[in-house]
Amino acid sequence: MIPRYTPAEVGALWSPAARYRTWLEVELAACEAMEATGAVPAGTAASIRPIADRLDPDRIDAIERETRHDVIAFLTHVEELAGPPARWLHLGMTSSDVLDTGLAISLRGAADAILARADALLAAFRARIEEHRHTPMIGRSHGIHAEPITFGVALAGHFAEIARARRRVASARHEIAVGKIAGAVGTYAHLDPAVEAAALAKLGLRPETVATQIVPRDRHAAFVTACASVAGAIERFATNVRHWQRTEVLEAEEAFAKGQKGSSAMPHKRNPILSENLCGLARVVRAQVVPALENVALWHERDISHSSVERMMMPDVTATTAFMLERCRTLIEGLVVYPQNLGHNLARARGLWASEGVLLALVRAGKPRQEAYVWVQRNAMRAFHGEGDFLELLLADTEIRALVGEDAIRAELDLDRALAKCGAIIDRALGETP
Amino acid sequence: MIPRYTPAEVGALWSPAARYRTWLEVELAACEAMEATGAVPAGTAASIRPIADRLDPDRIDAIERETRHDVIAFLTHVEELAGPPARWLHLGMTSSDVLDTGLAISLRGAADAILARADALLAAFRARIEEHRHTPMIGRSHGIHAEPITFGVALAGHFAEIARARRRVASARHEIAVGKIAGAVGTYAHLDPAVEAAALAKLGLRPETVATQIVPRDRHAAFVTACASVAGAIERFATNVRHWQRTEVLEAEEAFAKGQKGSSAMPHKRNPILSENLCGLARVVRAQVVPALENVALWHERDISHSSVERMMMPDVTATTAFMLERCRTLIEGLVVYPQNLGHNLARARGLWASEGVLLALVRAGKPRQEAYVWVQRNAMRAFHGEGDFLELLLADTEIRALVGEDAIRAELDLDRALAKCGAIIDRALGETP
Amino acid sequence: MIPRYTPAEVGALWSPAARYRTWLEVELAACEAMEATGAVPAGTAASIRPIADRLDPDRIDAIERETRHDVIAFLTHVEELAGPPARWLHLGMTSSDVLDTGLAISLRGAADAILARADALLAAFRARIEEHRHTPMIGRSHGIHAEPITFGVALAGHFAEIARARRRVASARHEIAVGKIAGAVGTYAHLDPAVEAAALAKLGLRPETVATQIVPRDRHAAFVTACASVAGAIERFATNVRHWQRTEVLEAEEAFAKGQKGSSAMPHKRNPILSENLCGLARVVRAQVVPALENVALWHERDISHSSVERMMMPDVTATTAFMLERCRTLIEGLVVYPQNLGHNLARARGLWASEGVLLALVRAGKPRQEAYVWVQRNAMRAFHGEGDFLELLLADTEIRALVGEDAIRAELDLDRALAKCGAIIDRALGETP
Amino acid sequence: MIPRYTPAEVGALWSPAARYRTWLEVELAACEAMEATGAVPAGTAASIRPIADRLDPDRIDAIERETRHDVIAFLTHVEELAGPPARWLHLGMTSSDVLDTGLAISLRGAADAILARADALLAAFRARIEEHRHTPMIGRSHGIHAEPITFGVALAGHFAEIARARRRVASARHEIAVGKIAGAVGTYAHLDPAVEAAALAKLGLRPETVATQIVPRDRHAAFVTACASVAGAIERFATNVRHWQRTEVLEAEEAFAKGQKGSSAMPHKRNPILSENLCGLARVVRAQVVPALENVALWHERDISHSSVERMMMPDVTATTAFMLERCRTLIEGLVVYPQNLGHNLARARGLWASEGVLLALVRAGKPRQEAYVWVQRNAMRAFHGEGDFLELLLADTEIRALVGEDAIRAELDLDRALAKCGAIIDRALGETP
Repeated sequence: MIPRYTPAEVGALWSPAARYRTWLEVELAACEAMEATGAVPAGTAASIRPIADRLDPDRIDAIERETRHDVIAFLTHVEELAGPPARWLHLGMTSSDVLDTGLAISLRGAADAILARADALLAAFRARIEEHRHTPMIGRSHGIHAEPITFGVALAGHFAEIARARRRVASARHEIAVGKIAGAVGTYAHLDPAVEAAALAKLGLRPETVATQIVPRDRHAAFVTACASVAGAIERFATNVRHWQRTEVLEAEEAFAKGQKGSSAMPHKRNPILSENLCGLARVVRAQVVPALENVALWHERDISHSSVERMMMPDVTATTAFMLERCRTLIEGLVVYPQNLGHNLARARGLWASEGVLLALVRAGKPRQEAYVWVQRNAMRAFHGEGDFLELLLADTEIRALVGEDAIRAELDLDRALAKCGAIIDRALGETP
Repeated sequence: MIPRYTPAEVGALWSPAARYRTWLEVELAACEAMEATGAVPAGTAASIRPIADRLDPDRIDAIERETRHDVIAFLTHVEELAGPPARWLHLGMTSSDVLDTGLAISLRGAADAILARADALLAAFRARIEEHRHTPMIGRSHGIHAEPITFGVALAGHFAEIARARRRVASARHEIAVGKIAGAVGTYAHLDPAVEAAALAKLGLRPETVATQIVPRDRHAAFVTACASVAGAIERFATNVRHWQRTEVLEAEEAFAKGQKGSSAMPHKRNPILSENLCGLARVVRAQVVPALENVALWHERDISHSSVERMMMPDVTATTAFMLERCRTLIEGLVVYPQNLGHNLARARGLWASEGVLLALVRAGKPRQEAYVWVQRNAMRAFHGEGDFLELLLADTEIRALVGEDAIRAELDLDRALAKCGAIIDRALGETP
Repeated sequence: MIPRYTPAEVGALWSPAARYRTWLEVELAACEAMEATGAVPAGTAASIRPIADRLDPDRIDAIERETRHDVIAFLTHVEELAGPPARWLHLGMTSSDVLDTGLAISLRGAADAILARADALLAAFRARIEEHRHTPMIGRSHGIHAEPITFGVALAGHFAEIARARRRVASARHEIAVGKIAGAVGTYAHLDPAVEAAALAKLGLRPETVATQIVPRDRHAAFVTACASVAGAIERFATNVRHWQRTEVLEAEEAFAKGQKGSSAMPHKRNPILSENLCGLARVVRAQVVPALENVALWHERDISHSSVERMMMPDVTATTAFMLERCRTLIEGLVVYPQNLGHNLARARGLWASEGVLLALVRAGKPRQEAYVWVQRNAMRAFHGEGDFLELLLADTEIRALVGEDAIRAELDLDRALAKCGAIIDRALGETP
Repeated sequence: MIPRYTPAEVGALWSPAARYRTWLEVELAACEAMEATGAVPAGTAASIRPIADRLDPDRIDAIERETRHDVIAFLTHVEELAGPPARWLHLGMTSSDVLDTGLAISLRGAADAILARADALLAAFRARIEEHRHTPMIGRSHGIHAEPITFGVALAGHFAEIARARRRVASARHEIAVGKIAGAVGTYAHLDPAVEAAALAKLGLRPETVATQIVPRDRHAAFVTACASVAGAIERFATNVRHWQRTEVLEAEEAFAKGQKGSSAMPHKRNPILSENLCGLARVVRAQVVPALENVALWHERDISHSSVERMMMPDVTATTAFMLERCRTLIEGLVVYPQNLGHNLARARGLWASEGVLLALVRAGKPRQEAYVWVQRNAMRAFHGEGDFLELLLADTEIRALVGEDAIRAELDLDRALAKCGAIIDRALGETP
């Protein structure tokens, strides 16, 4: 989590101050629930709550340097601030009851920040899809011209994929919205499950099915994976922008701000730096899936090896994912599309994209498929080598012409026919999302 | 996918013969759907279907060596076997319509094999959980004795985690049960979306929302990730078995078969080799999450870089995951549990596990938490260093005794009280599963 | 390791037959060394050696199904074949003495196969570099035209990187050329270090510094990493081929064989499938670095979790790396370069690539750098938008012209001057290799 | 790079201030070299150098917000501070000449910090190895007792592995000590290779063989991998400490500071938290190997996708690796070893560890190996199940006793004989290091 790639909202979730406030929130929720069962004197939580604004991260750090235990340091500081009633806090609880329940709150907050940004991104895509619903472009496989699509369909594919990734995050948010107030090894040895239920309900969380000392880490791994799914969806889009912008293609281009400079050496440069940046950040997020999964197999009722990983990973993954969604929205909103170049490139194909149509016409006229393929390919390869226009070559191929006729050949180059179903595809994508 | 770690059922799904049979199934489903729309003469599919048993993978390979294209080789071979009607196959379709729809069928089959094995594993766990519902053992955090649990609770934690992983696979199965008969760039240029809908319905699949040339690979990445989740859940259990079996602990042990030899050098050895094997295989599966995610960002309407990865990864991941589930079932079914040793280790703790109870008794008696901690810790550290029994030391600590009294101290060493809620935890876990 | 991506030579290294032959080789080397020290009767190894050709993998597998231990199954089979003298084999040794020393032999063989293919690939590159030493092309950063290079320089960059990767493999080969005949926990409890030294010397290996039961796995991780380095170098080249071949660029193209078909649907297609395949395989190899590193932290004097990983990983990694080197050689040897298109694309830049030269001319003439940048950029952006030729715009810019003069402006568009040092760069690369 | 896991020395290397100072150092070295060739007026660098102390990161950030280019922002700020002579800076250079040469300087600094800490760690190990050269302990494979070793040998194995990892870092340091002052696409279009050679020599770096716009990223991947090798070596040691410290084993324990608290709930806890922390951090470092390798295949003469990865990865990897080395040194220095428990555990094996010796005695006496195995195993399994002491059982086994005699059986339980070569192993390890 470095400032350059951290939305302020997400960064704030992981600040020491926020961390300690969340811990206090958990302790007080548990305390109130214990007051309800009579385990703790009524009014205890209410008497402690006002210290929330006086928690001092530096003081807690200082105590931790002696105790070498963060939650004990926190509780010691709370006792300093709140006095005797504070001894009722943490009653029968273990550090992880606070830490993991607090982590669930932070992750839920991060998930919400991610979901909100995903929604904003999808909305931005929706607008550009409508704008380019009918803008023809050449579809490509292997980087080679294939058959026509529309720019709207290309964007709709990204839209649908981002929407799927968003659903995975929503599902993972549900998976991690789980807390635990079950004691040292999850057996409620000094606690009442009803206290956990009540305290977590206050916090909007569910109890873990079978906790050990902690909430099992498969949930967190699922969450990180969902973030990587978002990153992957953005990476695919960003990769395509980079392709569209390359000099020879130039079908679309990142917005180039006034005052922006592309290169310290070459004043002529305009580079797709947002997209490249997003591709790099996708690697950053993806890389965290492995340690997240490695964190699952803790020893016995837990070991603490996951902790150092999560201290770095959780802020990194959530901030970077949220940042990527924001930047991607900037990217799609500002994307400069060049319909003229789209048309020019489509025309460069000199009708080669119609080769399948001619093949099918021959098949329908009775030619075995693989023989028809050879007939069409021989003309396509000549057109490819610049020995003529594909249509002219086909018309001049006496065998093909004899079998299907000039009109049928010409009909295969009808762009509108080729794109007839694109609108329906787009409607399907836009209609499917939550 | 090596024979040693491949269940026959899953291996068969990925054989060349199965692959080509599935392709034919897809072509014929599409052909029948086209017959219904009149695009293809009625009866075409029926006339071709009988060749299914005569498909010859070696012949297809030979053709591929010339065409360097697997689907064209397949179609050429089909034409060899079925004659002129075969030209109606693949009409308006592209290779990926066949490949990706076929892949969905194979992955669905693999998912079903995985789900069935997960169910069998959960059933095996259920039996052992019931058996050891009340068997006390020491719970451990950091590998250090903490507080008591039951062996049933420990197993229930694994049960709940495996059940969660199973749900993730079921969800991923839904994600990949998607086919595509939409042509070269997904635009239905020479196809009718109704043909796709009808053909996929026959095959039990849904149409892709927005296909490019292929089904987007985020779906496959989600599937591989779900498998890694299963592997991670098994890894955690296997890790614990390894701990339970280690010489000094010996609370449980893998079944040791008659005739089995543990070491070529040391006749006395009995090693947790199944569990260690499962830990290794978890690495194998987990490692595939990254290439699965890297496969997502294909260029434009697709490139074929994902193909080589999937040829190796999909068999490896599905076979290994299914194998792990089988082996884990063998492991849990055969696990030899030593209640006597469980009891012995629990007793080793010499009552130290009751330290929290004494701490809480002091807090309830009015002692500030951190001061009470110091009082209890000083006795615990002496017990730890073998300077006496924890209970005796506590009773001899005049400050503690003065504050809470002998009876209260003794009450904290009541094992039944410590385990009172374990049954409810187990019921919650067993009741939650599908 | 699937046949499609496995060179026969490497596949053979990992066959069961080869595996058992290697084990016998190790046992016999140790036996001979023990004969020399008198621990074993003279002539024992010689009397056993002839069975090498009669080892039966199926029989060994059958025995393993009972013993559940592969080396014991092997030794039992050897006793079946060789009779009483066989009891002298494995004296004081443990399975891993055989397994790990055998693995070193196999990995060394694989390393040699990789090194030989790397050399062949470098030689192929060398030829194409010489051929295109002076072929100008536009250099690109961010996919955007930058300044001129030569095709030879581009290839030389790949050459130098592959050569570095080759050196890493050579270094890793040294790291894994280590065996171990030190007994159950590496203490030579029933062995003489001199026996190990002599036996390993026969096998061309060095003794492990401090073995546990096994050779430490950091060595193997280093080897896998070196293979990933090769894969990464090839991936970068293959990525560039894909860029060069894309329709709008078409500066170079994979050889397209007679009879080859690019698409089942589109007869006009010629796709960079070798390059895409190499990019996918790079993911396959790279993914194995993590499990290789995870294998390092085995418990105590070893656990066997690494074994299942290595059974799949080592054949996969070595075969795939060797295959990639072969295929990459095919790729570079057959690469069709289009100098005309290279020239055309260079010209497309309409002189924009000279923007830095003009900037520097202004700086030399006394203009502060950032102000000069603005002057040049204003003309470059107009040229970029098609509002004129860069040279003409510069000449028409009175401020620039006034400061540096027409001749200096024109001089900046001299291609020969821009490429003057390319030959020296190439010589440096070609001269540096082993 | 979070403060908790960042040594100050390494953190400082990556501060914005250090970053900009390094850039200026590169610019001035190049400027001086150009002064020597006459390209730049003599004295330019000297006149600019004094501004080094006045560089203002915040001001540079502010400029970057407009230019969206960090090096241009830096140069603009330098012009603000140094006035007209500053226009001579960066002459013919491109941003990456500064960035990558600067990165090499930072990475070299980080490598030195890592190497120094590795040396300190090795020295700390050396002391403990000598201390426990002769301390016997049971060796374990699969977590199960095997045969005796000494604690010194166990440590020596870690020492040798850390020393190997250190050598890999030293080698990687050489690989990344490479700079580049070769212009926009690495062709020295406006530069003299002699300037690069001279400038880099001043900085203690070598020129890149064939640069593109940047230094190729395979070098940086090799560096990250070497760091992961260090992390892996530490992880293995830390894993063993965790095993040694577990309650039932307690052969060694992390130092437990006065005032330290092990658990917020359980005052009796002493947990191996340093070791667990190191295991987690190993995951953090290892995870970066994949993105480092993904960064290699940049497009054409470079794209900037690697940059965002490196901004996070390079500080994280270097700081975490250096921190791990420091913490590991604390761990080994403070490790409390319990020879009494080591002896107790060794005795627990009740002589079972001698099973191989008895097996070999039988073989030497003429018994076929697999039959001898069965004889020994039958006694070992009874001893394992607590049906008697292994030695007593062997002596009572009439077949074994008849064949080898009582004295030979008793001789196999001689611990000194079993450990006779441990000293030599240790000497070999300690003697091998740089």
